Amino acid sequence: MAHIHFPEGLPGILGPMAFSPATAKPLNALAEVLLRGPNSLSAADREMIATYVSSQNDCYFCQHAHGAVAAYRMQGNEKLIADIKVNFESAAISDKLKALLAIAGKTQKGGKQVTSADVERARQQGATDKEIHDTVLIAAAFCMFNRYVDGLATWAPADPEMYRENGKRLADVGYVHSTDNLPAAQK
Amino acid sequence: MAHIHFPEGLPGILGPMAFSPATAKPLNALAEVLLRGPNSLSAADREMIATYVSSQNDCYFCQHAHGAVAAYRMQGNEKLIADIKVNFESAAISDKLKALLAIAGKTQKGGKQVTSADVERARQQGATDKEIHDTVLIAAAFCMFNRYVDGLATWAPADPEMYRENGKRLADVGYVHSTDNLPAAQK
Repeated sequence: MAHIHFPEGLPGILGPMAFSPATAKPLNALAEVLLRGPNSLSAADREMIATYVSSQNDCYFCQHAHGAVAAYRMQGNEKLIADIKVNFESAAISDKLKALLAIAGKTQKGGKQVTSADVERARQQGATDKEIHDTVLIAAAFCMFNRYVDGLATWAPADPEMYRENGKRLADVGYVHSTDNLPAAQK
Repeated sequence: MAHIHFPEGLPGILGPMAFSPATAKPLNALAEVLLRGPNSLSAADREMIATYVSSQNDCYFCQHAHGAVAAYRMQGNEKLIADIKVNFESAAISDKLKALLAIAGKTQKGGKQVTSADVERARQQGATDKEIHDTVLIAAAFCMFNRYVDGLATWAPADPEMYRENGKRLADVGYVHSTDNLPAAQK
């Protein structure tokens, strides 16, 4: 049972967002620009970073919600997403994305864990300042989203098909209007 | 030296925000509603929660920037802010704020650390669903802001007077327009 009273039946972050539309608005705006805004990093790469950090934070809802977006953007390759969570260094992804995932993993542990050597490794693989910036902020933002979801003990569905459908919708429609039609919170 | 190229001389989060106005906008909007929006929790209480979490994350810039806002809102009582960081359970604050700080401290460690007993303790002290929600989200958000600031190895001034002046400005003027006039990033 969730720690506070949400409208019933809403999975994961949707409960808190229905409860608090005033904070949902900037949270969705942040997700939109970070994960779907104009960027030299593909939206798939950015969703993989979000998924990996959520996995490291052991947030069931977020790692499956964003893992489904990432898989949908990678032609349904769910095995790739699973491989990244287990060991991204041996996954079938670019050396640049591996270097960025290493920075994201350090950021998840704590900002000061990110070293000049981590950043240099990413630069050697062609990462730009913006790509490094966005990787750190995506990782940092999911340290927030994951804590928001789990800190309020929200409900996470177990059905993979729910996440697949939701992933397709988020990839196609985006985050900004993803919570527009939620039921109002019971006061 | 910061990990990426910011306009020079900007302290803490201002460098990354100048570098990336597109993400600064929702980040500032989130800080504004969480820390200064209409709320039964005082702005001072909310800044104390932000300061405590930033201290637990060992983020020098954020704990001093928001500690200064909190102290300004508490008639300049810097000792109170220091006491909260050392041991909030023995600080001269309400039992309700102690219970909320306990939830914030658990959220900082990880969302799943927050227990029903933590929430029940806060309710016994009169905390509402919204106050519990906002406490979790403030704590979660500062796990993001702290990682953003330290993950990019930003510069934190040591001069307490800078933080005092900045704290007064943030308390009086707010977060939304706090980065409007920053120099543009060097591309």
